[in-house]
Amino acid sequence: MRLEETALGSRRVFEGKIINLRVDEVELPNGQRATREVVEHPGAVAIAAVTEEGEIVLVRQFRKPAGEVLLEIPAGKLDPGEEPLECARRELAEETGITASSLKPLLRYYTTPGFSNEVIHLFGAAGLKKGEAAPDKDEFLEVVFLPLREALDMVREGKICDAKTIIGILWAVQQGL
Amino acid sequence: MRLEETALGSRRVFEGKIINLRVDEVELPNGQRATREVVEHPGAVAIAAVTEEGEIVLVRQFRKPAGEVLLEIPAGKLDPGEEPLECARRELAEETGITASSLKPLLRYYTTPGFSNEVIHLFGAAGLKKGEAAPDKDEFLEVVFLPLREALDMVREGKICDAKTIIGILWAVQQGL
Repeated sequence: MRLEETALGSRRVFEGKIINLRVDEVELPNGQRATREVVEHPGAVAIAAVTEEGEIVLVRQFRKPAGEVLLEIPAGKLDPGEEPLECARRELAEETGITASSLKPLLRYYTTPGFSNEVIHLFGAAGLKKGEAAPDKDEFLEVVFLPLREALDMVREGKICDAKTIIGILWAVQQGL
Repeated sequence: MRLEETALGSRRVFEGKIINLRVDEVELPNGQRATREVVEHPGAVAIAAVTEEGEIVLVRQFRKPAGEVLLEIPAGKLDPGEEPLECARRELAEETGITASSLKPLLRYYTTPGFSNEVIHLFGAAGLKKGEAAPDKDEFLEVVFLPLREALDMVREGKICDAKTIIGILWAVQQGL
């Protein structure tokens, strides 16, 4: 069975600071036409950083789209031309002040392939050394260290409710990071 | 430390079939102003359905934003006023033809709280009975049954690269669904 859609055209709707929006017209496998709304995103990194004591590094941050403060693993958008590994090192340092002697790619996935092309590169960080955070001027964060088992309980209880953070915690538990 | 932003105003940019886009102006905790691009999404369900033989139900589907065919757990948007549980039952039946004697809420999380308000309600399904799929007219799908351990290997190898599917598989393995 053919699943692919054929691109017919594309209309740019919005160009923003972080995202762009376009509406694509496609031909479906059955020959009919449909539109697809696509949010263009530069891609991002997220870091599952675990201390020698088995604590995962989290940041508390207000998220306007959610309208609340969320507990998340450190993460951030790729700058133009920036390598994911370099971005992970930068974001971990900026948001938490931490440097890692080991920083390894774990997973690479689409966050919301139904409406966005955003890819997250998830890294695992170990050999952590604490330092001074230097967040962006429009970022207000609190750094939290949490035993991995406690973080897993908070996922189960719905107190940690961010997709990349759930993946980071589950992967760290699953793979014994 | 105060983390919350104060809403100052909001401009609607786009109203679409699936998503809307608005740009909010906010006052940061330090009194400065910033803009926040927010993709409004109605919310969605996803279903980790595992057979008695320990196989997870997946669908292969072309995703225009990703530009490729992805392997995902069954999922779909909430209709206006629809309860997540009802939506999960409907989407599982439409996409795969499967009915489940047990359908339970597992997790509820933001997919991309940096730029969207989308919430996914993840359900676990068991007691599965196969039937005839009835996808939407613009959906073209193939149903795949995969041993959970094999699915976990495909996450590790990057062959399964969709966030909700990774969460569904990891949670099913972690919790012994």
